Amino acid sequence: MNVAPKVVPVILAGGTGTRLWPLSRQSLPKQFISLVSHNTLYQDTLLRVAQGALFLPPVVVTGADFRFFARRQAAEIGITPTILLEPARRDSGPALLAAAAYVRDLHGPDTLMLALAADHVVTDTPAFLACVEQAAAAAAAGHVVTFGITPSAPSTAYGYIRAGAPLDGGVAARVERFIEKPDLEAAARYVADGYLWNSGNFLFPAGLMLAEGARLEPELTACAEASVAKARTDLGFLTLDAAAFGAARAISIDFAILEHTDTAAVVAGAFGWSDIGAWDAVHAVSAQDENGNVMQGAVALHDSRNSYVHSDGKLVAGIGLDGLSVIATDDAVLVMPSDRAQDVKGLVGALTASRRNEVNEHLKMHRPWGTYQTICRGERFHVKKIMVEPGGTLSLQKHHHRAEHWVVVRGTAEVTLGDKVFTVNENESTYLPCGSVHRLANPGRIPLELIEVQTGSYLGEDDIVRLEDVYSRQ
Amino acid sequence: MNVAPKVVPVILAGGTGTRLWPLSRQSLPKQFISLVSHNTLYQDTLLRVAQGALFLPPVVVTGADFRFFARRQAAEIGITPTILLEPARRDSGPALLAAAAYVRDLHGPDTLMLALAADHVVTDTPAFLACVEQAAAAAAAGHVVTFGITPSAPSTAYGYIRAGAPLDGGVAARVERFIEKPDLEAAARYVADGYLWNSGNFLFPAGLMLAEGARLEPELTACAEASVAKARTDLGFLTLDAAAFGAARAISIDFAILEHTDTAAVVAGAFGWSDIGAWDAVHAVSAQDENGNVMQGAVALHDSRNSYVHSDGKLVAGIGLDGLSVIATDDAVLVMPSDRAQDVKGLVGALTASRRNEVNEHLKMHRPWGTYQTICRGERFHVKKIMVEPGGTLSLQKHHHRAEHWVVVRGTAEVTLGDKVFTVNENESTYLPCGSVHRLANPGRIPLELIEVQTGSYLGEDDIVRLEDVYSRQ
Repeated sequence: MNVAPKVVPVILAGGTGTRLWPLSRQSLPKQFISLVSHNTLYQDTLLRVAQGALFLPPVVVTGADFRFFARRQAAEIGITPTILLEPARRDSGPALLAAAAYVRDLHGPDTLMLALAADHVVTDTPAFLACVEQAAAAAAAGHVVTFGITPSAPSTAYGYIRAGAPLDGGVAARVERFIEKPDLEAAARYVADGYLWNSGNFLFPAGLMLAEGARLEPELTACAEASVAKARTDLGFLTLDAAAFGAARAISIDFAILEHTDTAAVVAGAFGWSDIGAWDAVHAVSAQDENGNVMQGAVALHDSRNSYVHSDGKLVAGIGLDGLSVIATDDAVLVMPSDRAQDVKGLVGALTASRRNEVNEHLKMHRPWGTYQTICRGERFHVKKIMVEPGGTLSLQKHHHRAEHWVVVRGTAEVTLGDKVFTVNENESTYLPCGSVHRLANPGRIPLELIEVQTGSYLGEDDIVRLEDVYSRQ
Repeated sequence: MNVAPKVVPVILAGGTGTRLWPLSRQSLPKQFISLVSHNTLYQDTLLRVAQGALFLPPVVVTGADFRFFARRQAAEIGITPTILLEPARRDSGPALLAAAAYVRDLHGPDTLMLALAADHVVTDTPAFLACVEQAAAAAAAGHVVTFGITPSAPSTAYGYIRAGAPLDGGVAARVERFIEKPDLEAAARYVADGYLWNSGNFLFPAGLMLAEGARLEPELTACAEASVAKARTDLGFLTLDAAAFGAARAISIDFAILEHTDTAAVVAGAFGWSDIGAWDAVHAVSAQDENGNVMQGAVALHDSRNSYVHSDGKLVAGIGLDGLSVIATDDAVLVMPSDRAQDVKGLVGALTASRRNEVNEHLKMHRPWGTYQTICRGERFHVKKIMVEPGGTLSLQKHHHRAEHWVVVRGTAEVTLGDKVFTVNENESTYLPCGSVHRLANPGRIPLELIEVQTGSYLGEDDIVRLEDVYSRQ
């Protein structure tokens, strides 16, 4: 093979998923949690395309809610991606076209772009990279290349691709047909006939995608182009223009371009891919013991098999389990036979309707400056554990209805209280009366941890008046 | 029926059980937890014999570890029992003989004593009380009367009783035979033949029990008698003499006396009795919905039946459950098919062997002065919520390795620090440096709640030097 052309990885990290509740939540979707390795899925995706000479620095596309996750989690693994922010959710079509315009403007129209979902698992990275090289050759020859997965079973959870004639001089083939998620009978037929799963990951020259977009979806593509042309940089993020991007209709890149372009090609791969769309898929891609069990966290199983048990902290004990999934977080536990994994979405819908907060938020909340976690809640008090990253600064703020006690248990706090600024060291505390203007910052080199005890008659998160904020929040 | 003789209820509350883990733990056994009603089983037992003119004030027999539960939980329902403390565990025989000696000394040998387990459920109290009246008549005529339960199924979890000839002028009958827990086939035969379950609750004249004891088990009975004769009162508890009581061998009252005395009689009853020995029994005695589910606490079930789901706090969601038991506490979750309920004991044994603290202790710990609960634990800090009852006083103490911050969130604290005594009001805080001699008390009329933040390099519970303690603890 010749020297491969350079590839810009574009990680699509704006999705939200409910099927992996209670771990995945609206405020912390699955790409940003650890499910099958120590890293998050997003981190593993970034690391997968950070190796070797093939790749240029990555671009991440996500929503404003997730921008600090995207930056912090990348920083944790030593990567500094460009982060494009979608001002609205419009499915993958507009996001991918906007990213293509950004890549073209930066590196030229012939630059290859590898569009990857941030929440997929790949267990065989060398096989994946070999596939990318094959796809790059086909893309450089003028194709929008999709990654087709050799099926391991007749799944009804994926779309299928029928490959046609091989392209000249490569392993890629023309796409003969895209097929929507089939029923089980049809799926079995497709598998027998050698069809491939459609993984929803693509490789193409940025200019070609935009040219095909302009031909097949001119309005959509114009919106995406304009959203990049008018994008503005803020706090190091590149925010796509809200008016232009918002004018695009929501559509997947498959429906908008892939299924209509006659440049579509497919490269078949078998690299341990899964979109881990539900808990049974997480079980399937995780390392199982000799009884078929997966135990993550503090788990004790007796006389059990084929079960997936995940605990974020507390001890989960099982007796006589068979084919059961148990997922325990700090504030919610889900129990079901593993073959009911697709029903989690309906359960979450019902819980949302009954206004259970466990659906949207975790006890631990992420903020630009660090995290906070409710550890105890009473009638007139609320105790939080607060972590401020080195250099992190909370907004200058005041509360009408609550006073706060801060006890520093690790690191050093710089506290602004009225017109005074002072330092609170480890094992020291300070008191912020109701109505006082205050600010917390970590001037040190290690994370600052403190225990906050709030007291007052009203303790809602909305009792906050932000007077200044380095993160431009309202 | 004639005027019934007076009856002293004696509640045996010294047992520990592991089959109801994770709710029942060594430090808080099942009689002291709420399982089927708002009250604890112990409270329900006390209330059952607090009605009507039949009963004299109750006596409770328990161990030193549980003495404050026994007193506090009785006080919560307005009852002030005499509490006898067993200095060692010796099964029910010595405890019951000692209680009989205490009752005889106080009220005379003809006084009837009703010995009840503190951890049984009775759903039909009027039927139970009617049975007690029948038993009292037979006991007054010179019998040790046991309560036989009309079986609802051929259970292998209970011993059986074969009733013989009816006694003169009553519904009680002589006991013809006691039978140990049988296998299923034998149990079915016993049920068909009209045998009764042995409930392990008894009614007898105190003097008669001691006379039978002196005849059948003279050494054991002498130890019990001596333990009462040399008992001492401390903090309002009557502690049986340790040397005398400790010299008694461990044996149940059934083996020691009931199965050998020719005064044994039985009264048959059907009053919704259960010893709720395991989770399936808790499910059976709890109110079930139309799908056979029992949901206690924050529980959401979809498409589920015949399942028992209990949550102490966090949301427990289930999909497609059938015949499953899920029990969730703050620090542990147990999941099993309900018919594996007997295997919990083995699981707890294995967890004990692997030194999991969830087996012995709850996060919330009970003390004579109130409770404390760990709400957050870090490498060099530990956050607790502390509740001190009105009038409660912690020991005068110091710690070598930790400093403490106290933030009062409800009520008023009286703090001793070195040679100063001062008040800390709601929304105020104070700091106790490492090594300082201090004491916390609640001088007010409402519970004192405070958040304690401990910091230091060693935070074990054993870093405490008690200089004075109103509860005589070491």
